[in-house]
Order: sequence, then structure tokens, then C-alpha cells
Amino acid sequence: MQQDTLTAEVVSIGDEMTSGARLDTNAQWLSRRLGELGIEVTFHSTVGDTLQHNIDVFRTAALRADVVVCTGGLGPTRDDLTRQALADVVDQPLELRQSALDHIHHLFARRNREMPERNEVQAMFPVGSLEIFNPQGTAPGVDVTFDRPDGSGSRLFALPGVPAEMKRMFDETVAPRILESGGARRHIEHHVMKFFGVGESDMEQRLGEMIARDHVPRVGITVSSATISLRISAIGPSAQDCHRQIESTRAEIMQRVGELHFGDGEEFEQYHAVERMLTERGESLVSVELGRSAVLANWFASLGESSTYRGGFCFAKLGELATVLDCDAAAALETLRRRCGAQWLVAVDEYPSLESSDDQPLPAADVTLIVIDPTGAVLSTNSRLGGHPSIIYERIGKAALAWLRHVLTEPRAERSDNPTAAR
Amino acid sequence: MQQDTLTAEVVSIGDEMTSGARLDTNAQWLSRRLGELGIEVTFHSTVGDTLQHNIDVFRTAALRADVVVCTGGLGPTRDDLTRQALADVVDQPLELRQSALDHIHHLFARRNREMPERNEVQAMFPVGSLEIFNPQGTAPGVDVTFDRPDGSGSRLFALPGVPAEMKRMFDETVAPRILESGGARRHIEHHVMKFFGVGESDMEQRLGEMIARDHVPRVGITVSSATISLRISAIGPSAQDCHRQIESTRAEIMQRVGELHFGDGEEFEQYHAVERMLTERGESLVSVELGRSAVLANWFASLGESSTYRGGFCFAKLGELATVLDCDAAAALETLRRRCGAQWLVAVDEYPSLESSDDQPLPAADVTLIVIDPTGAVLSTNSRLGGHPSIIYERIGKAALAWLRHVLTEPRAERSDNPTAAR
Repeated sequence: MQQDTLTAEVVSIGDEMTSGARLDTNAQWLSRRLGELGIEVTFHSTVGDTLQHNIDVFRTAALRADVVVCTGGLGPTRDDLTRQALADVVDQPLELRQSALDHIHHLFARRNREMPERNEVQAMFPVGSLEIFNPQGTAPGVDVTFDRPDGSGSRLFALPGVPAEMKRMFDETVAPRILESGGARRHIEHHVMKFFGVGESDMEQRLGEMIARDHVPRVGITVSSATISLRISAIGPSAQDCHRQIESTRAEIMQRVGELHFGDGEEFEQYHAVERMLTERGESLVSVELGRSAVLANWFASLGESSTYRGGFCFAKLGELATVLDCDAAAALETLRRRCGAQWLVAVDEYPSLESSDDQPLPAADVTLIVIDPTGAVLSTNSRLGGHPSIIYERIGKAALAWLRHVLTEPRAERSDNPTAAR
Repeated sequence: MQQDTLTAEVVSIGDEMTSGARLDTNAQWLSRRLGELGIEVTFHSTVGDTLQHNIDVFRTAALRADVVVCTGGLGPTRDDLTRQALADVVDQPLELRQSALDHIHHLFARRNREMPERNEVQAMFPVGSLEIFNPQGTAPGVDVTFDRPDGSGSRLFALPGVPAEMKRMFDETVAPRILESGGARRHIEHHVMKFFGVGESDMEQRLGEMIARDHVPRVGITVSSATISLRISAIGPSAQDCHRQIESTRAEIMQRVGELHFGDGEEFEQYHAVERMLTERGESLVSVELGRSAVLANWFASLGESSTYRGGFCFAKLGELATVLDCDAAAALETLRRRCGAQWLVAVDEYPSLESSDDQPLPAADVTLIVIDPTGAVLSTNSRLGGHPSIIYERIGKAALAWLRHVLTEPRAERSDNPTAAR
């Protein structure tokens, strides 16, 4: 198999998917991973727990795609039909695999439980198929090749529907097997870079051919609540070679859009970047949110006790904070910063109302983002921010963090704004 | 068409779906709605922007399902192939519909813009098809019947991929047309009830046959972060008949699980129930969250200025609140309640750390939920709460609201707990 010309289909199995009881997130995740391997996903199919429907869907998929990755239907109950459907499609009987059965026994023993008899079915495999080891659960995966009438083959990988198990099995076993199937041993390595402060289409324009499908290494772009992630996926003969590709691609990306970059890593967000900067300085932070959200408090609180975050305050209006602190409204923010013993304060004034938005994007409106620095100087900026109700508060909170990072980064004398005296 | 025996397929169109760039939530929403109409969804298919693949998928769907609802591919660009693919599948040419073109012109005129020439293609329909009016956007939907070789027909409804447009067009046009296709005029009405305080499987057991597929009217169960929704979907000859079915079903549900019920409506959450109770009393609330989350502040803040919510406070430890208020730690909560001029205070002590959870469910651990009432009495309870990291904080916040609702509901003399003196 030569990845660059391979196509794939992702199949999701279960009545809970076709009925809409559960949202299928596996298909999206698998499609991205397959794309990173250089394989174009051309179809997704979802099918309920009906044997004939499963057989039909597997056969159609194997005829039109070189790689088929399916999830679900590997449990121990009568609803779980994937093993039988695969056996029917490749026209082979099921046989018991002792190694798989031993692993299932081992998992039950570890939990001090007897294995129920029905779980034995999870160790049944179509003759000629390979196991896919599942370190976390009792459902091993199945790796079987379907011989097409034209003499070519389609490789079917069946994984459990539980996302954590599915993801680990794909990364640890399925991806390496796909990479090795070309004959030569090949590695894949990923690196994620995070950006804030620009729209997706502007970002795409600035990156140009770097995010084209045929760029080596592949650079994938995704957006989540106004944070842009670039995922570099390098394939090469060694991990070292992959790292070299990633290094040079990362450097080229930094040249083009470096001023928007705030950190690296899939889970790395702006509040982590702020936390890191404050930890290095040995300084701490409080947040004040006026209006209708507490996203900053929610983010910083998640960092836990050892963080530099002193606390979060959320009010409809600044006057209410003053009442609680028993001070003038004009001095409320600075009073709070001092009482909390924090060097820095970040505030949003204010999150807009969504009451009449009717699920439509809000037009851009001015929001004041305020930072108070360790000297008590108030540094504020007006940002024009809009967007869909589902993301507008996160976008505003992130804009406040971008402003805080800007103030933290610029040497005081060179700040582009005019600090005013502390209120 | 007789709904009870009909099957449906949902088709999602676009490279952004097959590549995994975008998560498909339309298929889930449509599957639920079709289920409520009594139609079993047997397959979902997702296909990219390739004409022949679209034709293949439509034909396969029309041959195996009585109703096909597809989303996407109705835009004005060359990537948008749904109109052409439908025309090819039913073997009819495309023709311009003046009514659709007038609507598109009208939408551009309303925004003071000239219609670009390419948008004209959105008014093209296969000969013999019906329009589906799109009140919000320039892409009308297409409703066309495919004649199967056996003489029966499959009805294909093509809708835009934009969720807000798709949902409104389905509810306003597609669902009524499906209901009318049986000959008799039929209505559908929905009613959503909300519950907290029990797991999904316990809830299912207590509801028994009420949530069976063949129950009349249909009752669907969904769970979101420990909140359970029951959606009653009644089909009948008149709206009045539907409401009667809903009333009697609602009463039966209340008999079985009424003590867990906190309100009605798709978007109604426990914080709305608390807001309603406090508004009726003319009383107000502050919240304090210790540990690593601010979900209560985030929920109540979203209610806006006119709410009974005075503010939210989020700290690692109670001692830090005392420092800010310049009072004893033992008196911090009560001091805060008084300074805020609020009758009620709700506090969580504390949200657990997720640091070593490794994406696995957290074991149940004690969390103290505290309410202070208008007399200053402290009413606290210990809840053993666990769950997946992605929902544990919301579950704890919701348990705190359930405790607050309990205290608000019970007459003071009959409270099962022992109020202690205010700290």
C-alpha cells in the first residue's frame, strides 16, 4: 500500500448512533488521524445493530475504500455483531484466540471479578485475521483483509466504540500497521501549535501552500472558539527524521504568523501561557468579570491550588463589587488587587447580553479589556468583538488574555497604550 | 406513507465532514426528529464534494430507505453539487424557479447588496421537485421523489448544512410534509421535561415501558452532564389531541419520577428553576466556589442583569475569601452574603483535582454543599460524587443547586438537616 493514493472509509456502529441518542465524535477523530497519515477519507457510514445491514455496509466500504476503520459492536452482548459481520464479509468462520481470552481473564482478575461466560465471545476472531491489543478494555480489535474481485485488497480495522480505548488502539497499533504496510518501516510524529487573534480564513491565506493537502509534512488547521490549532504530522524513516521535518516547518510557520502564536501542545491554552509567564516572575493574578459570564474564573480555577491565580469575581456591575469591598466604585478593581495580594488583575467590562440573539451571530461591539499591573497602573483597550452566541464569551475572555499577555510581554516603557493612574 | 413502518437515512455532504475538519451534529439532530415522527433511521452516510460519490450515495439511500434527509452542498459555489446530484439520480434536468430566485434577490436587497451572479444557481431545481422555503438564507431546499424499480417511491429532502437554517426548515416544512404524506392531516407536538438526581439506567428502569419504541406517544430519553431530559412527541389528528396525549403522559411520568423533576423546556436548567423560585420570593443569591471550577458563576451570570444573582466568587481556599473581605475565615461566607445584600448563599467546598485522572472517571468522593438561608443559618450536606473529568464539575455544581432547591422547598421546621449557627 502506498499512502499517498489510498482512500479510507470510517464506519460507526450502533443503534445509539443511528437513533441520534449519542453524538458520534469517533468518526471525526479518525478522519483527522487518517488524513495525517496521508490517506483521504472519502466516506463515513453509520449503521445500527442489525447483522445484514452491517454486512452490507462493510462490503460496500471494502469495495470502495482501501482502508476501513470501524468502531463499535465489539462488546459481549447479543447486540454486538461486528465480529460476526466481519467473518461473513471475508467468508471465514470465527475461532477462539487463547491470547485474547487470557487478556480478558486477566482484566477481570485484576478487578477481583469472575469473567462472565458471555465475555468469551470477545476472544472470537475470523480465521486469518490479526488481533488489535486493547490495553484498557476487554474488547480486542480485529484487523482483517478483504479480497476484492479485482485481486486487490481492502484492510478492515474494527475498534471498540469507547473513545479512550479506540484512540489508544488506533495510535498504538492501527497507524503503525498502515505505515508499515508499504514495506518500509515508517514513523509518524505530531506537533501542535496554538494561535489567537485572527480569523480562520486570514490564517489560511497567510499560511498559503503550507496547509495544502500535498505539503510535506502535512499541516492541518482547526479552530475551536477562536483559538486556531496547527497540527504538523511528519512521516519519515525515523523519529529523528520526523522531528527534523517538524522543526523546519515550525520555524517557517513562526516566520509567517509568529506574532499570533502563544504556545505548543494539543491542550495548551492562553491561560496556561499566562500561568507560565506569571510563575516565571513569581507573580499572581485575580480576575473580574462583569456582565454575563465567568469564563476566565472557570479557566484559571481549573489550574488548581498551586497556580498563581488568587481568585475570580463575577458581578453584573462594578458598583456591586465596590459594595462588597466597602470602597469607592472608582477604586474597586485596585482595592481588590491589593486585598488579594496579587500583582496583576485582568477584567472584562462587559460580556454582552445574548437575550435577543435568536441563535444568530452577534454583531461586533466594543468590550473594554482592563489590566492592572504591579504598580497599580490601569492599562485598558477597547476590542470590537462579535460572533456566534455559543462562542462569544470564550472569544471575549480569550481577547482579555491576549491583552494581558501583550502587557506582560512589552517592556513598560514601550507599551503602545497610555497607562492611566489607578482608579 | 404510513410512518410506523417507514425507514430513513440521513446524508451529510461536504469535504469538511469526511476530512474531520468539522464535527457533524446535524445527523444526530435529524435522527432524533425523525424518530419522534415514528420513523426508524437505519443509516447515516457522509460524503465529500465529489459528484459521482454524491450520486452513488443518494441512489443507495433511496433504494434502502423510504425517506432520505440530506444536509449540505446547496451553496452557490462549484463545490456545491447537491442540486446536480439529485437531478442525475431522478434523471431530470435542472430548471430555474422564479419564486426561489425572487426570494434570493429579496434577501440580498434587504442587506443592501447586489446579488452575485453565481447565486442564481441556488434557484435551480430538478424538474418535478418541490421547493423547501428557507426563511433565513439564500439556499432553498429540494424535495424530490425517486421512483424505485419495484414501483415504490423514496422521498429525498435536501437541506442546507447551516444548523439554524436546517432545523427551522425541517420543523416548518419537512416534518409537516412527511406527516401529510399518509393522506390524513396529522400534527406533531413536543414537550420536554427535565430531571436531576439519578443515573440514566435507574431512570430507564423506573420509566419501564414508557420509553419503549412502540409507546404512544413516544418518550425519548437523553442525558447531558447528569441532567436527564424526557422528550414527549405526540402525533395526532389535531394539536389539541397531541396536547391531551402530552398531558396524560406527563402526569404518568410525574407519578413515577416526580421527585426528580425540576422543570420543563429544552433549554430549562436547574439554575433557571432556582432563579424562578427566588424571583417569586423577591430574594437574591450569591455563590462561592472553592477549588477548581466556577460553573455556578458561569451559569448564573448568563441570566443577565435583571436576575436575582448578586455575584460569584471563586477561590482556592476559604481563607483567601476571608483575606479579601478582611474578616475571620469562620465568618467569611456569612459576611459575604450580608455585604452582597443577598438573602441566600450557595457554596461548593470543594471541586476535586483532576490532575492525575488520565481521562478516566473519578471515584466518588465527598463534596460539601453549603446553603446559607436568610436568617444566617448554615445548611450543609455531604454528597458523594464522581464521574468523568469532562462532566464532574458540572455534576457537582448541579448537586449544589439540587441542595439549594431542596432547602428552598422544604418548610423550615421540617428540614431534615440540622442548621448550625452561621459561621
